[in-house]
Amino acid sequence: MQDRYAIKGNIIFTKTPERFEVLENGYLVVEGKFVKGIYRSLPNEFRKIKIIDYENAIIIPGFVDLHSHAPQFPNLGLGLDKELMNWLQTYTFPEEFKYSNSSYAKKVYSAFIKELWRFGTTRACVFSTLHKNTTKLLMDLFAESGLSAYVGKVNMDRNSPEYLIETTKASIKDTIEILEEYSNKYELVKPIITPRFVPSCTFQLLKGLGNLAQKYDVPVQSHLCENYDEISFVKKLHPDYKNYSSIYNDARLFGDVPTIMAHCVLVDEDEIELMSRKKVFVAHCSNSNYNLSSGIAPIRSFITRGISVGLGSDISGGHSLSMMNVIVNAAQASNIKWLEKGRADKPLSISELFYLATKGGGKFFGKVGSFEEGYEFDALIIDDSSLYAFKPLSIEERLKKFIYIGDDRNIKVRYAAGKKIEEPRCY
Amino acid sequence: MQDRYAIKGNIIFTKTPERFEVLENGYLVVEGKFVKGIYRSLPNEFRKIKIIDYENAIIIPGFVDLHSHAPQFPNLGLGLDKELMNWLQTYTFPEEFKYSNSSYAKKVYSAFIKELWRFGTTRACVFSTLHKNTTKLLMDLFAESGLSAYVGKVNMDRNSPEYLIETTKASIKDTIEILEEYSNKYELVKPIITPRFVPSCTFQLLKGLGNLAQKYDVPVQSHLCENYDEISFVKKLHPDYKNYSSIYNDARLFGDVPTIMAHCVLVDEDEIELMSRKKVFVAHCSNSNYNLSSGIAPIRSFITRGISVGLGSDISGGHSLSMMNVIVNAAQASNIKWLEKGRADKPLSISELFYLATKGGGKFFGKVGSFEEGYEFDALIIDDSSLYAFKPLSIEERLKKFIYIGDDRNIKVRYAAGKKIEEPRCY
Repeated sequence: MQDRYAIKGNIIFTKTPERFEVLENGYLVVEGKFVKGIYRSLPNEFRKIKIIDYENAIIIPGFVDLHSHAPQFPNLGLGLDKELMNWLQTYTFPEEFKYSNSSYAKKVYSAFIKELWRFGTTRACVFSTLHKNTTKLLMDLFAESGLSAYVGKVNMDRNSPEYLIETTKASIKDTIEILEEYSNKYELVKPIITPRFVPSCTFQLLKGLGNLAQKYDVPVQSHLCENYDEISFVKKLHPDYKNYSSIYNDARLFGDVPTIMAHCVLVDEDEIELMSRKKVFVAHCSNSNYNLSSGIAPIRSFITRGISVGLGSDISGGHSLSMMNVIVNAAQASNIKWLEKGRADKPLSISELFYLATKGGGKFFGKVGSFEEGYEFDALIIDDSSLYAFKPLSIEERLKKFIYIGDDRNIKVRYAAGKKIEEPRCY
Repeated sequence: MQDRYAIKGNIIFTKTPERFEVLENGYLVVEGKFVKGIYRSLPNEFRKIKIIDYENAIIIPGFVDLHSHAPQFPNLGLGLDKELMNWLQTYTFPEEFKYSNSSYAKKVYSAFIKELWRFGTTRACVFSTLHKNTTKLLMDLFAESGLSAYVGKVNMDRNSPEYLIETTKASIKDTIEILEEYSNKYELVKPIITPRFVPSCTFQLLKGLGNLAQKYDVPVQSHLCENYDEISFVKKLHPDYKNYSSIYNDARLFGDVPTIMAHCVLVDEDEIELMSRKKVFVAHCSNSNYNLSSGIAPIRSFITRGISVGLGSDISGGHSLSMMNVIVNAAQASNIKWLEKGRADKPLSISELFYLATKGGGKFFGKVGSFEEGYEFDALIIDDSSLYAFKPLSIEERLKKFIYIGDDRNIKVRYAAGKKIEEPRCY
């Protein structure tokens, strides 16, 4: 029998996007790394297990960040005055260059992981750089922290600065090395195939990566239709393809294995159809899409078409690792999208956005982001007593207040896969 | 000779919107409540004055919040799922009703002021409710805090719930009482004429208030063209007027005295012309305009036309009292506006937005929001050492990081009108 314990408090989560499930002053039983169940009163069979009483605190699933760039952490809040392609050249590539240096990488990556922890993100899909060794380092640091992540060595063999480019052959070789070494090294930290995006990958490289994804059965993450200039450039590079998505698809990088495409701001109808059919995940990164003047992704259309969506911080295009901030930003974006579309496609509700930030993105990790039986137990204990309440608030209202005006100070305890996660070490 | 002292640190502010003025490791001399000057090294004439050395900290002007509703503070982060008119009926009016109760008002208002302080807002234009006594209380609490504010008793004599409406006569009478009692009571806290908006004020009331504004020479604040349904309603109420602004204008509430109009999301060309000619201030509240699905105000057009603009938190339509948050949100809004307009009207830069949040809004208070000679000395001492910097950053970059990823924890000291402001008391 695996270790069991119960936690007690005000449990709230989203089984479905439409509404919050609330259990006031209830029990959640954990067995090993899984949720066993939630109970109004503790069943007899559990009467001898340890109970951790969080009293009046709110208990929510840990947040899932479906898209971020660890090496861009030093640029957080800087360089947000350009669109994507110039932004990459001016601010991002020069920073990513530095990650050939392990001691620099260790400093930044450990701080990045600590910040994820601070804001209650228990699962993350992360881009590193093209550098093999510091990508491994990032995975080791994640494993040390206890947080769960997919980490991708970035592949880029064209249209990139001389100081940040690899040959097609080296790109494939280094990727294989990581897949061989890391696919089974850790339970909670896994490699993911990560072509940067079509503009910086030859088709030969994309095809090679598609083959690796099949061979090693590992997932894929990349960028799709983020910004106007990027799409124009892709069209120029591949005039024979009818759209951006079909290039990835032709390389077997579009849903042949579980796939996340970040942004999808400007996808066309055919692409939406393909995303839906191939079960491609969308990482919605509205902060970044605002900051780099990309636009607002049509998330309601995606959801209506049955496409899986999660939320991403996309630092440092996005400026905040806080998924509370990301939820609020996405709520605002969906209001404006609704106006843009002449009041079609109703705005996303907070329960829908909370779902995207937990169970929606969590689906990419398996059974993650909910307190249903059999889900991995990722949780945050929220003490909202510092947030003014001048009247009795429901648990749902308290959660909304936390999302809109709370911050890391309100997160008292974090759990990932059944274990309490202490503050990660900063090197 | 008035009291003089100097503070030392990394001084940064905006004299003009286009760029930051930076004085690294410089001196700022304060004389009474005014800035005497900034100096690379301390001139001989000041060699005997007290120097407060803030070492590596950044010194910026205090923030100016040009539009907020103190009684809506308890609703912060709640009820953001409706557009303006339904939002008022469902969430806002029932809360504002409570401010007939002085002890409730004292609790909320003192917490509201403490939060302004916490986030570094040293000047605020604030709506209370229609209640005379608790409006006075709010002014007294502001005076006690040392922060500076214009506070307006709200006027509303039609189209409002039975529990939150006044007669035209009582509305005028109570306003006069406050003007008589408070116009000269405090140096830093002043009354301001505050018709809620056209839908809730008869024209007779508006005209009466216009007369009071003239007679007592006090400024005016109200709302203008915030949301689509609101404007439709105003058109129905006043079919003879060519637009919303002309109703205020006809009542002498549109720039005949200094006037702030909040929102101005949907003003037409004639209205922009009138706003420009009558020197009406715009309080730009993008957070609120996002949250209530109102749209994005054409701020670049306003600025190009010479209209004065400041930023407003507009709580609780806006969800954050942090002017750092408001700046970031307004930056994102201006990026999307730029896209909406087919890449016309270039986005607002961070120096422009910082200017709006300090000197731009500060202009409504006189010489406020800058460190030029003769400006009232409002300042924040920013310790950004908790914000990761992995490379040497310029003072301007450090300020940007603070705005994008810092919070109240980074604000170590606040000054308003020459005086250090301690944490206000919470009742």
